[in-house]
Amino acid sequence: MKKIYRANILYTKQKDCFEIIEDGYVAVGDDGRVCRVAADRDSLGWPDAEVVDYTGKLLIPAMNDVHVHAAQYHNQGIAMDMELLPWLEHYTFPEEAKFADTDYAERIYSRFVSHLRRVGTMRAAVFATVHTEGTRRLMRLFSEAGMGALVGKVAMDRNCPDSLIETVDEAVSGMEQLATEYSDPQSLVRPIVTPRFIPSCTPAMLKACGELASRYGLPVQSHLSENLAEVASVHQLEPDALGYGDAYRRYGLFGQTPTVMAHCVWSDAAERRLMKEGDVMVAHCPTSNFNVASGMAPIRTFLDEGIRVGLGSDISGGHDLSIFRTMVYAIQVSKMHYQRNHDMPFLLLSEAFWMATKGGGSFFGRVGSFEEGYDFDALVIDDHDLYPEDYTLEQRLERFIYTGDDRHIVHRFCRGKEV
Amino acid sequence: MKKIYRANILYTKQKDCFEIIEDGYVAVGDDGRVCRVAADRDSLGWPDAEVVDYTGKLLIPAMNDVHVHAAQYHNQGIAMDMELLPWLEHYTFPEEAKFADTDYAERIYSRFVSHLRRVGTMRAAVFATVHTEGTRRLMRLFSEAGMGALVGKVAMDRNCPDSLIETVDEAVSGMEQLATEYSDPQSLVRPIVTPRFIPSCTPAMLKACGELASRYGLPVQSHLSENLAEVASVHQLEPDALGYGDAYRRYGLFGQTPTVMAHCVWSDAAERRLMKEGDVMVAHCPTSNFNVASGMAPIRTFLDEGIRVGLGSDISGGHDLSIFRTMVYAIQVSKMHYQRNHDMPFLLLSEAFWMATKGGGSFFGRVGSFEEGYDFDALVIDDHDLYPEDYTLEQRLERFIYTGDDRHIVHRFCRGKEV
Repeated sequence: MKKIYRANILYTKQKDCFEIIEDGYVAVGDDGRVCRVAADRDSLGWPDAEVVDYTGKLLIPAMNDVHVHAAQYHNQGIAMDMELLPWLEHYTFPEEAKFADTDYAERIYSRFVSHLRRVGTMRAAVFATVHTEGTRRLMRLFSEAGMGALVGKVAMDRNCPDSLIETVDEAVSGMEQLATEYSDPQSLVRPIVTPRFIPSCTPAMLKACGELASRYGLPVQSHLSENLAEVASVHQLEPDALGYGDAYRRYGLFGQTPTVMAHCVWSDAAERRLMKEGDVMVAHCPTSNFNVASGMAPIRTFLDEGIRVGLGSDISGGHDLSIFRTMVYAIQVSKMHYQRNHDMPFLLLSEAFWMATKGGGSFFGRVGSFEEGYDFDALVIDDHDLYPEDYTLEQRLERFIYTGDDRHIVHRFCRGKEV
Repeated sequence: MKKIYRANILYTKQKDCFEIIEDGYVAVGDDGRVCRVAADRDSLGWPDAEVVDYTGKLLIPAMNDVHVHAAQYHNQGIAMDMELLPWLEHYTFPEEAKFADTDYAERIYSRFVSHLRRVGTMRAAVFATVHTEGTRRLMRLFSEAGMGALVGKVAMDRNCPDSLIETVDEAVSGMEQLATEYSDPQSLVRPIVTPRFIPSCTPAMLKACGELASRYGLPVQSHLSENLAEVASVHQLEPDALGYGDAYRRYGLFGQTPTVMAHCVWSDAAERRLMKEGDVMVAHCPTSNFNVASGMAPIRTFLDEGIRVGLGSDISGGHDLSIFRTMVYAIQVSKMHYQRNHDMPFLLLSEAFWMATKGGGSFFGRVGSFEEGYDFDALVIDDHDLYPEDYTLEQRLERFIYTGDDRHIVHRFCRGKEV
């Protein structure tokens, strides 16, 4: 049903500034997509459409999380005392092994999806585990919630506990089942090919993943150049590749279908060039990069080079599921680069917001803006207890991003439907 | 009245580990101080004392914020686009000038004190503004709330708008009024001598501040080595001093009375040696140091050298008033140092917690621990919605610190009284 939403509207068409309409209107069609944004009711047309009145509140695009591990939700906010490789071995793999128990999976995944909704994230690129049935449950939970997700059954067959190892045939069979069950390209929930990362996957597994992505036209997600020890290990494991990114590329996992790579803290110029060529998106996970002591990704460089960037919470390397908080961390990381090198200007608020909305959203379709034809993925922010009368609309948004939380998010929409 | 509190008790005597008593008891005397902590009721004595039952919840020392600007509360979470010196000029000084209006001061300070209470901070070392009457209001608000604070009427007489400049005589007169009105050394609210920082104070003002601290036996707070441009400016302004810290020392403002210095991002070995000699406390403000693009303070080095460290939210350079969040940032900063230099181990959770409680608390007396004779400053944490049954007590605390918020703080005590 056609609807018109009245509120203070803020979004980013371009990175470098906000579009701001005080007391404006967004018209949303039967298909859940934005028809038009306007400053006055009359110019919208649709005289009979229902007007939903959020006068005084902020209406912004919903958050998109382009890198998060649903199966690590139980470890959120604990186990913060190791770097990546030992952290995986000691904390993460033992936790993921529990997801062989489908009831356990259902329990943790329910908490995860509910929390994701709470913090205003309407689309996510998600790692599950190697377990097909658990992954299926997670996909169902997203479908039932009416939220958008690209969900990856994880592929891995080396350097991990036996209980998490599948053969290539088992892995392919599980991925094909899910690809067949969720084959509608218009569905909000879809599978994504998810080799964990090169250290966890034999060449045969990586090859099978690349072939599967190509055969089913599926997107790809993985990890790239997160930690120096990890990068060194990839150079040893794939001596013929020109680098970590090139290793993925050789297996058909680096832009041959839409690809998002988490972290890219240590990507060098050659790797960034390959990303640009393949239109590979960076999932910038600044919180996680702090917590796992990986480093600080030079996001200004990626943006300057025209590489796509979205934001990821990366639970449980990251501790905070909120993409609003992730924006703050992204700006802070960029300020540490700027502090050392004033030729790298730090991120504007509008740039961080753009990454969280239109930047990351582009991985899910026309998502993350209120431009015509975009899915109406939106949040209504009630900041009455943040003294809105004292601030401009842009300051109200900034203040909410920096100091607000899920209590201020009073309505959530995904493709036009309230979630 | 004597009281006994029953709960899961966690605190830090030493930096490197938690004291944890599952389902234990804290006995608090008529004077609001801890008499004893025990694992069972009988060994406490006091058979007739009331037992307040917080079974299942966490009982921890309250937070101490050793650096925060009450008068910048209106700018919390906005104006994040400049480095220190232009930021002061464009955003901070114009805001502080508004505090000549005492009604405005009352309004903003009320919000500030209420928010501080909400996030579980029971003691704070606070900057007000140059305005004596506004500062008096802030002190009264703390007194009325039953919270502890060292409140500084700011001294400054150069490099700032005319409206914020006082003569040395005016400044001294205002500080003396407040020192006289709050002269009881046992009072929870006391004045603190607060030269803003060397770039804002003439030598005459700095000298007067040092003499005042000595005459009234008052503690001192200021800023030190926050930003490279600021440090360079101090070297120009005080060419005879051996450095920034030494300049304060020459005016009697660096350990001659108890002293806390905010930031210390760029303190060199000589400055740290002076801090050690004067027992000067670092107010580590990692959030602010990110936001204002100052840098990352090497806290491991300060701890290794035996220098006292507490945590500061530094609103509005910092955006988050919660010292729990500040702990997370402190650990993250230490991980970035560790990433570059593995000889600087990152902070343990217990070390961050110690800085937030016993470390910072030591600036306010015997505060920040549940050892005998300490003021009973405490928080009761109800983490039932964080799935406590799945975690150990230390993990529950860690998870609350990383992912919880003020909703989980259900009781607050300052020196034995519920706030």
